[in-house]
Amino acid sequence: MSEQVKMTALQYENDRPPAENPLKIMDLSLRDGHQSLFATRGRTEDMIPVAEMMDEVGFWAIETWGGATFDTMHRFLNEDPWERLRTLKRYLKKTPFSMLLRAQNLVGYRNYADDLAYAFVDRAAENGMDVFRTFDALNDYRNFETVVKQIKKSGKHFQGCICYTLTAPRLGGEVYNLEYYINKAKDLESMGADTICLKDMAGLMAPYDAFQVVKALKEAVTIPIHLHSHFTSGMSPMTHLKAIEAGVDIIDTCMTPYAYRTSHAAIEPLVMTLLGTNRDTGFDIKKLAAINEILEKQVMPKYKHLLDDSKVSIIDINVLLHQTPGGMLSNLVNQLREMDALDKIDEVYKELPKVRKDLGQIPLVTPTSQIVGVQTVNNVLHDTPDERYKMITGQVKDLCYGLYGKTAIPINPEVQKKALQGYPRGEEPITCRPAEVLEPELDKAKEEIGELAVDMDDLILYAQFPVTGRKFLEWKYGKSEPPESVKPITLEDVARRDGFVKKAKDGLLVEKKGDTPEKTEALRTFNVFVDNEYFSVEVDPVGGPMIVPAPQQVSSAVAAPSPTPPPAASPPPPKAEEKEPAPSKSTDGTLLLAPMPGMVVSYEKDIGDKVTKGETVVILEAMKMENALPAPCDGVIKANNFSSGDTVAKGAALSVIE
Amino acid sequence: MSEQVKMTALQYENDRPPAENPLKIMDLSLRDGHQSLFATRGRTEDMIPVAEMMDEVGFWAIETWGGATFDTMHRFLNEDPWERLRTLKRYLKKTPFSMLLRAQNLVGYRNYADDLAYAFVDRAAENGMDVFRTFDALNDYRNFETVVKQIKKSGKHFQGCICYTLTAPRLGGEVYNLEYYINKAKDLESMGADTICLKDMAGLMAPYDAFQVVKALKEAVTIPIHLHSHFTSGMSPMTHLKAIEAGVDIIDTCMTPYAYRTSHAAIEPLVMTLLGTNRDTGFDIKKLAAINEILEKQVMPKYKHLLDDSKVSIIDINVLLHQTPGGMLSNLVNQLREMDALDKIDEVYKELPKVRKDLGQIPLVTPTSQIVGVQTVNNVLHDTPDERYKMITGQVKDLCYGLYGKTAIPINPEVQKKALQGYPRGEEPITCRPAEVLEPELDKAKEEIGELAVDMDDLILYAQFPVTGRKFLEWKYGKSEPPESVKPITLEDVARRDGFVKKAKDGLLVEKKGDTPEKTEALRTFNVFVDNEYFSVEVDPVGGPMIVPAPQQVSSAVAAPSPTPPPAASPPPPKAEEKEPAPSKSTDGTLLLAPMPGMVVSYEKDIGDKVTKGETVVILEAMKMENALPAPCDGVIKANNFSSGDTVAKGAALSVIE
Repeated sequence: MSEQVKMTALQYENDRPPAENPLKIMDLSLRDGHQSLFATRGRTEDMIPVAEMMDEVGFWAIETWGGATFDTMHRFLNEDPWERLRTLKRYLKKTPFSMLLRAQNLVGYRNYADDLAYAFVDRAAENGMDVFRTFDALNDYRNFETVVKQIKKSGKHFQGCICYTLTAPRLGGEVYNLEYYINKAKDLESMGADTICLKDMAGLMAPYDAFQVVKALKEAVTIPIHLHSHFTSGMSPMTHLKAIEAGVDIIDTCMTPYAYRTSHAAIEPLVMTLLGTNRDTGFDIKKLAAINEILEKQVMPKYKHLLDDSKVSIIDINVLLHQTPGGMLSNLVNQLREMDALDKIDEVYKELPKVRKDLGQIPLVTPTSQIVGVQTVNNVLHDTPDERYKMITGQVKDLCYGLYGKTAIPINPEVQKKALQGYPRGEEPITCRPAEVLEPELDKAKEEIGELAVDMDDLILYAQFPVTGRKFLEWKYGKSEPPESVKPITLEDVARRDGFVKKAKDGLLVEKKGDTPEKTEALRTFNVFVDNEYFSVEVDPVGGPMIVPAPQQVSSAVAAPSPTPPPAASPPPPKAEEKEPAPSKSTDGTLLLAPMPGMVVSYEKDIGDKVTKGETVVILEAMKMENALPAPCDGVIKANNFSSGDTVAKGAALSVIE
Repeated sequence: MSEQVKMTALQYENDRPPAENPLKIMDLSLRDGHQSLFATRGRTEDMIPVAEMMDEVGFWAIETWGGATFDTMHRFLNEDPWERLRTLKRYLKKTPFSMLLRAQNLVGYRNYADDLAYAFVDRAAENGMDVFRTFDALNDYRNFETVVKQIKKSGKHFQGCICYTLTAPRLGGEVYNLEYYINKAKDLESMGADTICLKDMAGLMAPYDAFQVVKALKEAVTIPIHLHSHFTSGMSPMTHLKAIEAGVDIIDTCMTPYAYRTSHAAIEPLVMTLLGTNRDTGFDIKKLAAINEILEKQVMPKYKHLLDDSKVSIIDINVLLHQTPGGMLSNLVNQLREMDALDKIDEVYKELPKVRKDLGQIPLVTPTSQIVGVQTVNNVLHDTPDERYKMITGQVKDLCYGLYGKTAIPINPEVQKKALQGYPRGEEPITCRPAEVLEPELDKAKEEIGELAVDMDDLILYAQFPVTGRKFLEWKYGKSEPPESVKPITLEDVARRDGFVKKAKDGLLVEKKGDTPEKTEALRTFNVFVDNEYFSVEVDPVGGPMIVPAPQQVSSAVAAPSPTPPPAASPPPPKAEEKEPAPSKSTDGTLLLAPMPGMVVSYEKDIGDKVTKGETVVILEAMKMENALPAPCDGVIKANNFSSGDTVAKGAALSVIE
């Protein structure tokens, strides 16, 4: 049948004798499954109904933690991430837990200092984590050193990842060829990895390339090989099969309701495929079916509305066309659309590989995909062709300095020089392990948060998420009331909502009318961004008429070095203004407007400070990146309208400059 | 890499040299794609925007016709099926057309007489059909004889199907083993088939079984092998790959928006998978992407609401558990649920393989899956275990008589004898080709329809669909006005509907209230079944109060030999009545109620006729099957409330018996 998979005896019983070399399976439903399909919004209470049944399946491990769960839980779900670990352990007693660890980034979005990294891994192990799947966006394994020391010290399983990426439509070429992956695997083995994970986060790995890579890795190292390949491009079921034929040891799948689309292929078809072969998983499909039934009936109704239903297609073939993660291109398209520059999309596609090469041909994965994508848009929109890199983002500067680690090939020296002009840490890039230039941060964090962090787990949460972490601790300890938006919905809520929508479809609803003519006239609807979620609210002004500031216009003269478009008008600006783009002026001064919805990290200028045009006034976090927003003109800061931690809508007046 | 697929040179250019043995692809988007995902509701006007681009891809053929399209077009879309063929030919000039032909069933649901079969194939060929993919639900190739004669006479391509089915979770066992498929393939080759299609309509074919079957068939016959495997169970991408490695010549896929779920895997991941190998399709992914973009933007918005979104899961693992088509089990579950007998589901699962074996271990595909499913429910619900087959459906009787053809193994003689007791055609089953016992029917049809059928195409349409076909011809020639429901929707309609639903979600709508107190009080909402579609209508009675007949209750004493449940009450019957199930009585007599929504085919009894309990009074077509509804009691027919062709809601009083 194939080199590695042989039919033995086709037995259907669920107590059939174990296969010669059963394929091992890690289930991702409870982490990557809902992270991929439902914006990481899975709640612990919705995992408990199937936890004991899942413990009986025979998974090699179940991924329960890490990735974006830590952030999302405390920020959007009012759940303590540490508590999930302890709770699930009470139901899943036999199957090891796995987590996705972003190496020195832990479960946050920047490199943290070593003291925090040690503490995090120590506490995760203590709280019940077994397998630490560790990855670095640049495949720079110096970023593994600290966490691996602690994983080993805690006596846990170190799984080292190789992020899979391409520079051509398929495996091969100058950088990401077979040799690259073999070398990385050898590096991991010599670092003491217990297993190696080929991490194909974008679904780029083609079936026959998987065969080649897995075969080569099985020959190069002795430790087991584990494949993680997203379904996004539609290739992964075939990729799984060819990897199995090449001898892969472990494969990642999801339970059917958490499977496919940008998630992973489902487990059940694979179980049937291998039935009766030397790689038979030994799993009982009936047990899997029983779990699915509970998930579909009791859990999915609460999450269904989070599925991306903007398209009928469940795969994204842009991944095949451009070798980039699915989300990256749709972000770029959305940005261009909002800037009325969708006609530049082909230029962006052409510029993208150039920028990536300039920046050291780095893998494209969060956060590097954003870094490359944003700089690409900047190059295309804000510069003439011979004036690329006129606007360089802060993240590109950090990358050029060496703060993310070593790139696959050297960064273009011209770009690097340009980027590091006036860079505060120094104009000379570092070559050491990035975390070596970071000061310890736990003590400083403890000082900031004080008694609100009751134990080390609280402190580690705060240290990685100072703004949302503080809010969460305030909710946790009753210092403030959590908003409605973080409360769970029930099946009753779902039924009510669905019933209402059904009535609308059936034509049983009519438009709401104001109770009084005055209210009707003044009532306006706004999309308001609260805690990174949109809410549609009706505003009925009590005092005088609202003043809506005229939005900042796009022009190369005032373009912000930001990944996202300048604000679209709401309501649209008078046509006359569009002809002469200029910084927005209120009656009292020029406004610095938020070019995207996001969260204010900090003001770099205080009221009364002098600023020159282009100087950074405020840091706004959006799309997991910090954006330094520059002053639109020279002047003096007259007002800073928000505080650190405030979430702001696109177009919000962040500061007034006089 | 594998036995058959070898890497040659990895070239990405779209004018790369042809591969040694390029895999050929048939696209199904325009027939099976929308039949699987959008209830066959695809309109010709929505195919035209991509037709010329699809003609450039290089498909071996494009499936454009047949299956359920002929029925759906004239019935629900007010489109002339023949016209679609001619219209699409104007845009798709290079690529051959393929159709799914149900052998002697043509594009309808019963065996038609030879004169009609000849005429149909002749006209299809004349109107532009190139490839006739022909199948028979029993794989009884005597049912091919007539159509093949005409296909050959017309000089067209005869593709013979082998319906793929299983009696165990995987290939093998007593009936559907490798030998079975080899013999069928040889039969087809000797009948003059130009190609052979392995038709896996339920998605049952596991990858390594595909490898075995394809390899065996490639050795057994010299004509090309074509694989058609639905995605339903999630195995098909892997099945495709293993079939390719075994040397399959042609594979069926869909464009991404028409792919996956109960449809087929998408073409694009397969193109990338084979890039640079000796089986490279040579297709340009960019061209495919451009087609997808048009489909997503201009076409999908009109069809999205037809997608089954009752579950988040996009595969149906019941297929893996029970080796039955996905739709079959959900039908059974729905029937049991409506009969409040969902607790019998496990009995049904146990009974199903027994009934199938009794009935000659037939493949499970429309209509045989319904025949087996309905009889299974009858056996479980209406009989004590030692009294199975007390109620035998008309279709089972026909099957036992031999009207469908020869079964894979002989029918259980006891069941056969029971079924043919008093069977009107005779108690002795036939052994000849079924159509040999059918009288020619074209002349009779012409006599019935008269001048309304202007040409042979009209007549053939009418002959296969006497009720809906007549209606369509009346619309076509302006004799009656087509209802709103058959008119196309526009993107503007979609935007309006979506806007309305969005407003509902945003809480901007309120419940409709009656304009006057009287209206509000009397206004009631009903789900009404018109032309096989549900409509929610508000009824405001003008005269006296409405009389809603009490529904017929379930009990073994009055159970109808029908596939579907007795009517649920709307409004629910008084609780008191539930205790003593009895035939419904109006003040004037006992009502025979429609146990399901459907279309009245004919009344077997006239007003004034005497009936005894259990005797057939009316034939109701539902779920593509004719159901003989028996009298609930002895008496005299007092009223027959509908006419042939009327569509009736569940619970409609079809007849009154005094």
